[in-house]
Amino acid sequence: MSDAQLAVLLGRNIRAERYRLGLSQEQLAEVSGLHRTYIGVIERGEKNITICNCKKIAHALNLTLWELIRMCEDFRKPASA
Amino acid sequence: MSDAQLAVLLGRNIRAERYRLGLSQEQLAEVSGLHRTYIGVIERGEKNITICNCKKIAHALNLTLWELIRMCEDFRKPASA
Repeated sequence: MSDAQLAVLLGRNIRAERYRLGLSQEQLAEVSGLHRTYIGVIERGEKNITICNCKKIAHALNLTLWELIRMCEDFRKPASA
Repeated sequence: MSDAQLAVLLGRNIRAERYRLGLSQEQLAEVSGLHRTYIGVIERGEKNITICNCKKIAHALNLTLWELIRMCEDFRKPASA
């Protein structure tokens, strides 16, 4: 998995878990102690996030860091239609 | 777990796994495609590594990224003597 793919998959998983919890980007930013625009950048997969910031987001989503990352590494493409 | 604790635990786990494989810092740097001095900085817990660089190191140690991070998050202090 390339660096760019990891960043995109991480962003998608963060957004999916945020939706699961019914949180807005503002609420996730507040709980994680990060800026709302930063959350948006990460969800779009546009930045190579640090371990510590990723931990803050994971914990704000009630996940451990390794659980959030495992979602990305275990990702299997959907069967093409 | 504070950011500083995570950085230190990550560094210790990377060093422990490197020792397990009998690799030098130079060899780990070569396999991971990162600089040897960077490996040293990370092993000493002096830097907040990015997810992508941490993935490179994990894979060079024959681990998935989430396995390496889980070692840090599951860490329990040794019973004091």
